[in-house]
Amino acid sequence: MNTAINYINILKKVYQSIEAIESKGETAKYIPELDKVNPNQLGVYFLSNSNIEYGIGDYQTKLSIQSISKVLSLSLAYKLLGERVWERVGVEPSGNPFNSLIQLESDNGIPRNPLINAGALVICDMLVSQLENPKHDFLKFVREVSAYKEINYCESTAKSEESVGFRNKALCNYIKSFGNIENHPDVVLDFYFHMCSIQMTCQELANTFTFLAFSDETSVLNVRQTKRINAIMQTCGFYDESGEFAFKVGLPGKSGVGGGIIALHPEKYCIAVWSPKLNEKGNSYKGMKFLELFTTETELSIF
Amino acid sequence: MNTAINYINILKKVYQSIEAIESKGETAKYIPELDKVNPNQLGVYFLSNSNIEYGIGDYQTKLSIQSISKVLSLSLAYKLLGERVWERVGVEPSGNPFNSLIQLESDNGIPRNPLINAGALVICDMLVSQLENPKHDFLKFVREVSAYKEINYCESTAKSEESVGFRNKALCNYIKSFGNIENHPDVVLDFYFHMCSIQMTCQELANTFTFLAFSDETSVLNVRQTKRINAIMQTCGFYDESGEFAFKVGLPGKSGVGGGIIALHPEKYCIAVWSPKLNEKGNSYKGMKFLELFTTETELSIF
Amino acid sequence: MNTAINYINILKKVYQSIEAIESKGETAKYIPELDKVNPNQLGVYFLSNSNIEYGIGDYQTKLSIQSISKVLSLSLAYKLLGERVWERVGVEPSGNPFNSLIQLESDNGIPRNPLINAGALVICDMLVSQLENPKHDFLKFVREVSAYKEINYCESTAKSEESVGFRNKALCNYIKSFGNIENHPDVVLDFYFHMCSIQMTCQELANTFTFLAFSDETSVLNVRQTKRINAIMQTCGFYDESGEFAFKVGLPGKSGVGGGIIALHPEKYCIAVWSPKLNEKGNSYKGMKFLELFTTETELSIF
Amino acid sequence: MNTAINYINILKKVYQSIEAIESKGETAKYIPELDKVNPNQLGVYFLSNSNIEYGIGDYQTKLSIQSISKVLSLSLAYKLLGERVWERVGVEPSGNPFNSLIQLESDNGIPRNPLINAGALVICDMLVSQLENPKHDFLKFVREVSAYKEINYCESTAKSEESVGFRNKALCNYIKSFGNIENHPDVVLDFYFHMCSIQMTCQELANTFTFLAFSDETSVLNVRQTKRINAIMQTCGFYDESGEFAFKVGLPGKSGVGGGIIALHPEKYCIAVWSPKLNEKGNSYKGMKFLELFTTETELSIF
Repeated sequence: MNTAINYINILKKVYQSIEAIESKGETAKYIPELDKVNPNQLGVYFLSNSNIEYGIGDYQTKLSIQSISKVLSLSLAYKLLGERVWERVGVEPSGNPFNSLIQLESDNGIPRNPLINAGALVICDMLVSQLENPKHDFLKFVREVSAYKEINYCESTAKSEESVGFRNKALCNYIKSFGNIENHPDVVLDFYFHMCSIQMTCQELANTFTFLAFSDETSVLNVRQTKRINAIMQTCGFYDESGEFAFKVGLPGKSGVGGGIIALHPEKYCIAVWSPKLNEKGNSYKGMKFLELFTTETELSIF
Repeated sequence: MNTAINYINILKKVYQSIEAIESKGETAKYIPELDKVNPNQLGVYFLSNSNIEYGIGDYQTKLSIQSISKVLSLSLAYKLLGERVWERVGVEPSGNPFNSLIQLESDNGIPRNPLINAGALVICDMLVSQLENPKHDFLKFVREVSAYKEINYCESTAKSEESVGFRNKALCNYIKSFGNIENHPDVVLDFYFHMCSIQMTCQELANTFTFLAFSDETSVLNVRQTKRINAIMQTCGFYDESGEFAFKVGLPGKSGVGGGIIALHPEKYCIAVWSPKLNEKGNSYKGMKFLELFTTETELSIF
Repeated sequence: MNTAINYINILKKVYQSIEAIESKGETAKYIPELDKVNPNQLGVYFLSNSNIEYGIGDYQTKLSIQSISKVLSLSLAYKLLGERVWERVGVEPSGNPFNSLIQLESDNGIPRNPLINAGALVICDMLVSQLENPKHDFLKFVREVSAYKEINYCESTAKSEESVGFRNKALCNYIKSFGNIENHPDVVLDFYFHMCSIQMTCQELANTFTFLAFSDETSVLNVRQTKRINAIMQTCGFYDESGEFAFKVGLPGKSGVGGGIIALHPEKYCIAVWSPKLNEKGNSYKGMKFLELFTTETELSIF
Repeated sequence: MNTAINYINILKKVYQSIEAIESKGETAKYIPELDKVNPNQLGVYFLSNSNIEYGIGDYQTKLSIQSISKVLSLSLAYKLLGERVWERVGVEPSGNPFNSLIQLESDNGIPRNPLINAGALVICDMLVSQLENPKHDFLKFVREVSAYKEINYCESTAKSEESVGFRNKALCNYIKSFGNIENHPDVVLDFYFHMCSIQMTCQELANTFTFLAFSDETSVLNVRQTKRINAIMQTCGFYDESGEFAFKVGLPGKSGVGGGIIALHPEKYCIAVWSPKLNEKGNSYKGMKFLELFTTETELSIF
C-alpha cells in the first residue's frame, strides 16, 4: 500500500481538497512583519525513507519558521549538554495557552517543556552559555543539519518581534527572577528573536527534519535522544492543541505562528506544510486540516 | 531482531533487573482496601501480534485495575455515542495533578480529557444515561472484550473508595454545578467506584487490551476510533507524568493506583505490568522502570 | 451635625433617590425559592447609639438573610472556641469569586476567611461538633442575640438550596478531602443550608447586629473579639466586591444573595437595607447604592 | 482617656515591650542595598490631631520607604486624573503574594489594586504620561506634602533594585503586553525604582501622611478622595497580610520592605514605625507587633 505512487497521488488529492476550502483563520497580526505575508499561500513538501520526494504548491517560498526553530535549538542543546538539559526544563505538556505564566509560578521557574516559549527561552539561555558566538554558531548548526548553506535569519522579522515581544520579555525576566536564566535577559531575548526569524522553504524544512525522522542517517543525536525529541514533539508540539493533533493526526510534529508545520512518521517519512492563516490555538488552519486528511487517507499514523 | 526468542529473553532479563531494585514508592494508602495488598509483588504479561504470549512473576494474581478501567468506559462510550463524546470532554493533556479542580473552573466544567478523574466521571455519567443497567451492562462489555467471563467488581474495594472518595465527590458535584453531569452525582459516583474496583490478573489485562493493540481483530471500535483512543492514552494516560512516559517509554498506555500499567505498541504488542508501590506521581514505581528498560532493550517504541 | 433629625431626613432623602432609580440587577435565580420573591421591594432600618430607630419602605417584610448568617455562626463559634477558630480558617480577603475552589487547592483546605462559602462551611463544621443539637442551639443563639423569639429557619428555602447546592457540596467534600471538615459532609451541609435560610425583617436584622455595633451593650463577645469580627466584615464581607464596598461605603458589613445587607459604624449606628435584585458580584444592587449615598450624605464612614 | 499623657505613656510602654522581644524576621536580602542596614533599629514617631508629637528610638534615622511610596504616587495620580485612575487599576484586595502574575492573566492586565507592585507600575505609567519631568515633579510633590524640602531619592538603592528587579521587569512587560502600560517599560521601571528609593525618617514619614490622617488640613485631596485612599490602605496595604492587619491592628496603613510602616486613625492620629527585619509576609516584624500592641493598649481602632 505504501508505495511511491500512492503517496504522491494522495498528496495531490489532499492538496486539492484543502486548497478548495476556505481558510477561516487569521495571520499572526501581532507581529507586524508576519502580517505582511500573502495569507492565501499553501505549500507542501514530502520526503520518505524510500527516497520519494514531492513538493506541491508554494513549497519553494520562504516562510518564517518561528517556533519550529525551538526543536532545532533543543536538539543542539541536547547534543551539547545531554541529560543535563532536563534539570532546567521539564517534558510534560503544559495544558495551558502557549505564553502562560501561571505554571511558572507554581513550578518555581522550571518551564513545563522546551517547546513552549518559557522552555525555549531557557534552552536559548543554555546555548548562549555554551556557544562562543551564539547566533553565528546556531545558524551554522542549522545549515549543517539541513544541508542548505544559505539558510538565514530575517533581521526585519527579528526586529519586528522584538518591538512587540513584551510577553516574551516578561517571561524571560520572570524566569530570571527564579534563577533559571543565567545570562542577561536582553541577550537571551535577542538570540530567541533571531532564532524564531529563521526563514526556510517547505522543501528546506522537510529536509532539515530528516535527522529526527530517519534516525540512523545522521550523527546529530543518537537513537535514544532522537526518540525522546520525537516524544516531546508528540506531547507538546502544538501548544494547547497538542492532544488534538495526536488525536486527529497522530504524528510527532511542531508548528510555528508563521503558519508552518513539520510532522514526521519515525523511519517512514517527513512532511512540511505551510499556510499562513492560523486557527484560534495559533496553529496553521489549513496545515492542521491537511495533515489530518493526509494521515486518514494513508492510514498511517504512529497509533 | 524482533523474533519470539528475543522478546522472551528480554522480558526475563528486564524482570530480573527490576525485581532486584528496591521499590522506593508506597502503596495507595488513602484507599484502605488497596493498602492491604502485599506491596512486593511484580507481575508481567506480554502478548504479541505473532502470537507470542509470556507471563512472568505474579501475573496470575488479581489486581485492582483502578484508573485503567477509564479506557474501557471511554471505549464503550465512544462505541455508543461516537464523536458526540467530545462535546462534553476534551482530548488535551491536563498538565496538572490528576484530581485538580483548577482547570474545571476555567474550562466551565468541561474536563480536559477522559482519563483524568473529572473526565472519567463525565464518561460514567454518559454510560449511566445510555445503559439500561449500567453496572451490569458495563461488566458484560468488559467480559466480552477480554473474553474472560469471570471478571468482576470487588465490592469491598468499591465500598472502601466510596468511604474516602471525598475528592471524587467534590469533582462530581462541581461538574454537576456546571451542568455537565446529567444524573444524580450519587448514582454516577457509585458507578465510578465500581468501575475502578474491577479486578484482573496481568494476563487478563493484557488480553483485554488487544482490541486497542491489534485493531483489525475486533469490531469493538473501528480503526480510526482505535487510533484516537491510543493517541489519548499516549498524551494523557499517566496524569502529570504523561510526558515523562512518552519520553522514556514511548508507548500509549494507562496506569492505575492499584499499581497496574497497560501499554501497547500498535499492531505489534500489548504488555501488562503490575507492582503495587507507587511513585510520587501515583504511577507504579517498578512498572514504570520495567517499561522504560523494556523499550530500551527492544529498541521498539512508537517514536 | 449627627443629630436625630439629620439621620432621619437623610434616610428619607436617600430612600427617595434610590427608590426612583431602575434596578439593573436580577434576583438569585439559581435558588428556586429566592426567585419567587417580589423583586421590586426596598426596605431600610436604622438604629443609632443615641436610640434613634427608623424604618422605611418594606422594613417589616421577611427576607432570607442567606450569607449574612455567616457572621452569626462565626460569632457563635468565636464565642465557643476563642482564637482556636483561626487554626482552621484564615482572615484574609479571598480576591476571587465567592465560590472559588482554586485557593483551597493551594491553601491545603484552609479557607481564606470565614465569610466565603468555604470558610462558612468550616465554621458550620465547628458548630456541628460543639453544639449538642446544632440547628436548635444555633437558632436559640440567634433569637437571644436579636431578642426576637420567633426568628426561624425557612424549611422550603433550605430544601430549595439543597436541591441545587452542588457547588457547596463540592466545596464541603473538597475541604473534607483535606481533613478540615470533621463531620460527615451531609450533616454539615444540612446545617449550612438551614443557617442560610433564616428569615428576618430589616428591623430584626438591624437589631440583631447591635451586638457588633455597640460593643459594650452585650456580653456575646468581648470588645477585642467584636473589633475583629468587624474587621473581617470590612475586608471580606462582600466577596469579590469587598474592596469596592470599603472604597465607596467605608463601613464593615455583610451581604446575602437574598438581597439583604447589614452595615455598621462601630459605636455609632447599625443599618439594614434590603432589595432583592443583585448586581453582577452577587450583592444587592440598590442596597449597595443606598449605602454609598447614605455615607456620602452623612459624611460618616470609618475612614 | 485619649489625653496627651496617655498616648505618650503608652508609646513608651509599648516601645519597651517590643524592643525587648527578639525579632525573628530578616531584612530584605534580595535588594543588596537594603541588606546593608543595621537590622536591630527600632524607631517610632507619633502625631495626633491635638498636636501631640512624640518620637522614640531611631526615629531620626533615614529609612528607605519603598512600597510606602505607592500611596504617595497614587495620591498624586488621583489628584491629577480623578476617578479615571480606576479605569486602569482596581480597588480589590489581591489575595495573593505581592508580586503574583496569576491574577493579571485572568484580569487581562488590570491590576487588582494600586498598592501591589503591578498596580503601582500602572500608576507610575500614568504619572510618566502626566508629568513633564516625572522624577523631578514627583519629588517636588512629596516635598510639598511632607513640608521637608530635603527629602530625596537614594540613587544607590534605585540602582541596586534595578539590578535585581527582574520580577518587576516581568510585571511591567506583562502588563504592557495587555496594553495597560502606555510608555516604554524601561522608563516606567526607572521611575518606579526611584520612587521606591525615597528616604525619610519616621518623623518625616508621619508628617508626610498627615494629609491623609487629617483631611481638612490640606488641599491635596478632597475629603471623599482621602477616605477612599484610606479604605484602599485598609483592605490592600499589607499584601497577603492585609486581613491580618485589619484584624489585629484595625487601622489603614502601608508597609514597605525597608521595614517601615505608616498607619493612621482618621481624624485622630498618624504613626510611623520602623524596624528593618521582615516577617515571612514581607512586613516589618517588630513594626506589626508594635502597632498591634499599641491599638490594644489605646483601645482605639477604627473598628
